[in-house]
Amino acid sequence: MKKGNPHEISVGVVGLGLMGSSIVVALLLAGHRVVAIAPLPEDKNLGPKRINEYLAQCAQSGMLAAAPAKYLAQLTVTDDYAQLADCRLVLECVIEKLDVKKSVFSKIATYLATDAIIGSNTSAIPISTLQQYVPQPERFLGIHWAEPAYLTRFLEITCGQQTTPANAEWVLELAHHWGKEPTLLRKDVRGFITNRLMYAVYREIFHLIENQKATLEDVDKAFRYDAGSWMTLMGIFRRMDYLGLADYAEMLKTAFPQLSTTDQVPALMQRMVDTHARGVQNARGLYPYTEEEARQWEEAFALFNQDIYHLSSKYPVRPLGRNA
Amino acid sequence: MKKGNPHEISVGVVGLGLMGSSIVVALLLAGHRVVAIAPLPEDKNLGPKRINEYLAQCAQSGMLAAAPAKYLAQLTVTDDYAQLADCRLVLECVIEKLDVKKSVFSKIATYLATDAIIGSNTSAIPISTLQQYVPQPERFLGIHWAEPAYLTRFLEITCGQQTTPANAEWVLELAHHWGKEPTLLRKDVRGFITNRLMYAVYREIFHLIENQKATLEDVDKAFRYDAGSWMTLMGIFRRMDYLGLADYAEMLKTAFPQLSTTDQVPALMQRMVDTHARGVQNARGLYPYTEEEARQWEEAFALFNQDIYHLSSKYPVRPLGRNA
Repeated sequence: MKKGNPHEISVGVVGLGLMGSSIVVALLLAGHRVVAIAPLPEDKNLGPKRINEYLAQCAQSGMLAAAPAKYLAQLTVTDDYAQLADCRLVLECVIEKLDVKKSVFSKIATYLATDAIIGSNTSAIPISTLQQYVPQPERFLGIHWAEPAYLTRFLEITCGQQTTPANAEWVLELAHHWGKEPTLLRKDVRGFITNRLMYAVYREIFHLIENQKATLEDVDKAFRYDAGSWMTLMGIFRRMDYLGLADYAEMLKTAFPQLSTTDQVPALMQRMVDTHARGVQNARGLYPYTEEEARQWEEAFALFNQDIYHLSSKYPVRPLGRNA
Repeated sequence: MKKGNPHEISVGVVGLGLMGSSIVVALLLAGHRVVAIAPLPEDKNLGPKRINEYLAQCAQSGMLAAAPAKYLAQLTVTDDYAQLADCRLVLECVIEKLDVKKSVFSKIATYLATDAIIGSNTSAIPISTLQQYVPQPERFLGIHWAEPAYLTRFLEITCGQQTTPANAEWVLELAHHWGKEPTLLRKDVRGFITNRLMYAVYREIFHLIENQKATLEDVDKAFRYDAGSWMTLMGIFRRMDYLGLADYAEMLKTAFPQLSTTDQVPALMQRMVDTHARGVQNARGLYPYTEEEARQWEEAFALFNQDIYHLSSKYPVRPLGRNA
């Protein structure tokens, strides 16, 4: 498959929810022509509105080389899958329901070249499972973004059992043109990397909470001001190297037998789901929210995204020193 | 016990290694008079040298209200424990050996008022254990800092079984004068909060690595660019609220049974310890280092500390919005 310049590669995005809209902006910023399919009628209006907003934010924070209109000229929004015909890559970002995804894959494949790549943004369904419903499954893989897609460097590329490695490597190379620091999982690990490791945190954290050994507030503070003070620079293993490794084996030997091994859903989380608490989205969650507070968190996160993106860009993987 | 102004409270610090020196600077910045005991002859010179360096860094990044000399005038460095007599609080930061700590506690208690507080920076020995070797154990507690102490908002205060809660609350209030976002653990949880949760991450992470499901580089990238993009703003539970809680119970039900439950020290970590790899400190670790690279990481971390400290100060716990 032809490698190279994003300007010469058309990319399709199917699904124009929050995540799909955000991915469209990331691709436009990288120089791609983008064909965006809005399968839901409501997203045909809301999707472009979001895309405009995100581009305006990017312009404001100095990330654009040209006016937003120049990027928008490269975008087609449609509900006609036939317009995907020229795309070398199509990203599926629809809801996490297998039936919906199956139907979307079949529509995409009807119009796409048989060697064009299809990626799914799923975080819930194994790639090897989804792959079974894609014609020419060897060109299918996971391409998992973090929100907001145009302001994060994270990207997880995951092979299913039938994925041809060369296809994953083609995406990996392209992802560097998107300004990502991509990771490539050659095996289909359930939960990929970060989700899976966060599950391990959740198991222990709910165990502490349920035994009244810590409060939600204290856990969040500890993470914000301890882990938050090195995470963006170092990750996990580099941090261990930085602290020196001498005591770790001893500490882990003492600690592991004390950790939770439960496979039960924490009662607190089950109660949240049972009572339809949806956190910031409906101002009812693990914490209480007024509507004003929920709005403030949305706003703070949007601003923080910009700050942490610019901060992390001063500390690339290589060279190690600070750029600016 | 008298509450109030740091300017009226003398604080003792015993142990002038990296951490002790850094804690001295945090206390000087908060306005305390500090009596620093250097039990190791080498630290009598190195300690003040480090303190001078840290203060110069603080001056450079605009954190000082006066010249470094003004802060240094409030500092006494000595090996004479009798000089602790006027202190209302003494922080023990010596190495993690019970025998050493026992002897230090006994020397501190010889000169200190019986109602003055004694805190330990230990992260390895339970507070309830240490407490047994402190005369008037009700005034003893854990006061656990993150490096660098003067540039992080993290502080874990931990009660042992015999600690009087009012003493912990006195420290909690004082810690706000130090510019901290302190947490108070009323029970003596092994590993406190963040260490314990990181152990849960380590258990799962080494499990993935040992099964060739991910590489060290990929794990670190995923953490830097995913978790790193929200950790400093949100912590764990707030993040769940932000993403909406609807799918969590389902996800956890699937995920928990797949997580590692081992209580064995990971072979890779054991090998590191057996071969005396000490990470950045001796340029041999989980990653390979040249001496130049080890130096670059030290430098990058020093710069990053300043950046993330200033960034996080724009997003306090309350009010929620951005300050600057």
